[in-house]
Amino acid sequence: MTKEFIASEMKALQSRICKRLEEIDGVSKFIEDDWIREEGGGGTTKIIRKGDLIEKGGVAFSAVHGPVSEIMKKQLGLEGNEFFATGVSIVLHPNNPHVPIIHMNVRYFELNDGTFWFGGGIDLTPHYVIPEQAKLFHQGLKSICDKYHSDFYSKFKNWADDYFYIPHRNETRGIGGIFYDHQTAESGLSKEQLLKFALDLGDNFASLYDQQAELGRHKEITPQQIEWRNLRRGRYVEFNLVNDRGTKFGLLSGGRTESILMSLPANASWEYNLKLEEESDEQKTLNNLRKGIEWI
Amino acid sequence: MTKEFIASEMKALQSRICKRLEEIDGVSKFIEDDWIREEGGGGTTKIIRKGDLIEKGGVAFSAVHGPVSEIMKKQLGLEGNEFFATGVSIVLHPNNPHVPIIHMNVRYFELNDGTFWFGGGIDLTPHYVIPEQAKLFHQGLKSICDKYHSDFYSKFKNWADDYFYIPHRNETRGIGGIFYDHQTAESGLSKEQLLKFALDLGDNFASLYDQQAELGRHKEITPQQIEWRNLRRGRYVEFNLVNDRGTKFGLLSGGRTESILMSLPANASWEYNLKLEEESDEQKTLNNLRKGIEWI
Repeated sequence: MTKEFIASEMKALQSRICKRLEEIDGVSKFIEDDWIREEGGGGTTKIIRKGDLIEKGGVAFSAVHGPVSEIMKKQLGLEGNEFFATGVSIVLHPNNPHVPIIHMNVRYFELNDGTFWFGGGIDLTPHYVIPEQAKLFHQGLKSICDKYHSDFYSKFKNWADDYFYIPHRNETRGIGGIFYDHQTAESGLSKEQLLKFALDLGDNFASLYDQQAELGRHKEITPQQIEWRNLRRGRYVEFNLVNDRGTKFGLLSGGRTESILMSLPANASWEYNLKLEEESDEQKTLNNLRKGIEWI
Repeated sequence: MTKEFIASEMKALQSRICKRLEEIDGVSKFIEDDWIREEGGGGTTKIIRKGDLIEKGGVAFSAVHGPVSEIMKKQLGLEGNEFFATGVSIVLHPNNPHVPIIHMNVRYFELNDGTFWFGGGIDLTPHYVIPEQAKLFHQGLKSICDKYHSDFYSKFKNWADDYFYIPHRNETRGIGGIFYDHQTAESGLSKEQLLKFALDLGDNFASLYDQQAELGRHKEITPQQIEWRNLRRGRYVEFNLVNDRGTKFGLLSGGRTESILMSLPANASWEYNLKLEEESDEQKTLNNLRKGIEWI
């Protein structure tokens, strides 16, 4: 299975996901930006704005290659001479505070010494955590994982709890999901199966989000809920700019800034030392932003 | 001159600055939070919200001490056993897009082996750069610097150009100002003079800002200018969370998150791949966000 084949599968996945998301949104269409990377490769960034469901979102494909740079050696611990990387990344910020923010990434990496690995994940960031809805999301992920390996869900769920965590806030970003990295043939799956797993996650992404969106997008909203949504977006910005290894690596290594930062919301808010009512929905949400909750 | 004396001077400086800023704002007063650091020391964070001039701002004092941690050794290259650090930090975000964001920091650091140094700076981030106003600001800084050392202004001005820079945007944060670090007795100034310089900067801060504010705060504003202000605030957030060494070090080393992130605006916006009209005030501003401009 060549890297070109994997890249073409990723590109096709991006198209399928965007088509489904446009159907789900019902109003807005993706605009498309092709870009070329000077050192080798390029990508297509698709952006949706001011939809009925999605206020701002992006679905990015890239396939890049070139010499392993000093920063890649240092930050990723790589030792080859040439790398190739391809994948699809998504972040969607909805209008309605009762609909969660969602993120997905599936990626493939190889070095010219023949080593390769897959990574990826899907995680959900509700502005208001509702345990029954979190359960539905995790059940959906588990049923995909279980098709490939009986250990995947619990292993990758814990990995997501650890990865999507904001130490300086002592909060998880949301209710987690799954996260995995460096999956090689030693994972128990062949290269073909690992690609199939990634594509399966991608092809279920829009339905998983639609399920969550339907439960919230028609709910009435108050100005206070919008304020809270914007404060939670502030935390999302903090995670992405301070903690997310992918974002930091992308910015430091001279990636395409606009494609990397398409993950940021249309707007975000900050308030000094916000205090919440103990029994409020907002405080209940904070109480659920911690590692180790078994949602299923 | 003891570290306790320097800390008490810093604390008194914070009070004087807040008093002046309240006069300048004319409407809002600072609220005050005292906090204690588990490992030693503490601080007072003063926050102003929803003023006539200032939408959100903070003036923070701290005096902390304790063992030099692993992260301090690694990130700051320190080799002592015990450190002491005190200083005042300010960020003010105004309502009116025609008034700049301003930042100031003066700080003192010592180790138990007897070494010490001062650091600090003031820099200005106009939402709309007006070269004549930038000139006034730099002239004000130069006249303070010139009282202490004929090299300070040009040296510290270039240092600010380098420090307040956003590599992933290829933009400076604003029109710069002055920045300095690691100023010891080898700077040509004694410990007493270095403290006096820091306090002089602090005591001129409010007047420098008042001068800028008066030139903008009564100007009429359009919704488009508010949008642009919010996008520029987005860049301010990016600098602080991605590039600012002080913020990163503070968050990584377990500093008080609310005091560190008081620098963030009430709100901020992001737009994918924004395109501006060539002759617009916004594009002219971007053209002025680069290193090496001699404003005087």
